[in-house]
Amino acid sequence: MQLLEDRIIKDGKVFPGNVLKVDSFLNHQIDVELLDEMGKETKKLFADSAVTKILTIEASGIGVGCMFARHFNCPLLFAKKSKTLNIKGDVYTSKVESFTHQCTYDIIVSKDFLNENDTVLIVDDFLAKGNALIGLIDIVNQAGAKLAGCSIAIEKGYQGGGDKLRAKGIRVESLAIIEEMNDKTGEIFFRK
Amino acid sequence: MQLLEDRIIKDGKVFPGNVLKVDSFLNHQIDVELLDEMGKETKKLFADSAVTKILTIEASGIGVGCMFARHFNCPLLFAKKSKTLNIKGDVYTSKVESFTHQCTYDIIVSKDFLNENDTVLIVDDFLAKGNALIGLIDIVNQAGAKLAGCSIAIEKGYQGGGDKLRAKGIRVESLAIIEEMNDKTGEIFFRK
Repeated sequence: MQLLEDRIIKDGKVFPGNVLKVDSFLNHQIDVELLDEMGKETKKLFADSAVTKILTIEASGIGVGCMFARHFNCPLLFAKKSKTLNIKGDVYTSKVESFTHQCTYDIIVSKDFLNENDTVLIVDDFLAKGNALIGLIDIVNQAGAKLAGCSIAIEKGYQGGGDKLRAKGIRVESLAIIEEMNDKTGEIFFRK
Repeated sequence: MQLLEDRIIKDGKVFPGNVLKVDSFLNHQIDVELLDEMGKETKKLFADSAVTKILTIEASGIGVGCMFARHFNCPLLFAKKSKTLNIKGDVYTSKVESFTHQCTYDIIVSKDFLNENDTVLIVDDFLAKGNALIGLIDIVNQAGAKLAGCSIAIEKGYQGGGDKLRAKGIRVESLAIIEEMNDKTGEIFFRK
């Protein structure tokens, strides 16, 4: 998506270790107008899917999720993270390994809000190794729901998580896929 | 706000210890259409304030914050929670005592996104003791920004946090204020 790629070029900051900071518009300060355009684009991409629920994970997925859900006229459901699994009531759970925080945590979704009648679009702000998505897909499968696919704002193509999921036949649509970054020059190269 | 009060009556669940669960539409599953109406109402209430930034706190404030920010045509900024204060770059920080989780955590906002030219509306999904708001107001003050006020989805009036802030001259607008709940009958009474 040109609008998003242009914004990443303009405001994204590249740091050593292939780190991209986009906290001026995506995951600390949020440009809701940009997210709204991204939601419109995502609705076009998944126009053929009768999505009944958007599923994401706290915290920074919630912004993208809310603004996307508007365009699908459906609720947003966000998985909660828990380091100490304290199950209250009937929940689906899965384990997610965090590359950034170097830990494993449980994600939790109440069984009240997801079942076999749902068609789910999973969304998130970032896709790197794909561990969060794998956990969310596991929960969709536990619920017996149909998976429409995954819609991501920024995919770090060089980390391979997106392509691994695509190779398994899962539809993954990322609005911007970064192939390479250069922390010396600040250059960012996108997949065509 | 009648629409929100009606929804709390319809879908809210009262548990012993004055606990209200609204996770079917506010803080696990999110009804974005309802939040959009709440944002419209909040814009009316603060029509006289030239708000430049909505400020909230992760995680469940982000949904409300995004949908409110749309109506103010301004960005959403969310404070991050951190148990171990790991400062990277220039940030405002404050301490918040969590009544629910019985711990104290640091909240962090980058200095890049808040300064003395901003007029800030603080929003959150819940207001009980008011500790999160006090921390966010502290950060607005540190930035030298102007505080337009606080806009809350559901205030637990009987916990007194909102009235304490009002007594200090801070404008607090809650779309629904609960005065009393009965976990035996499930009844919920709102402030008139």
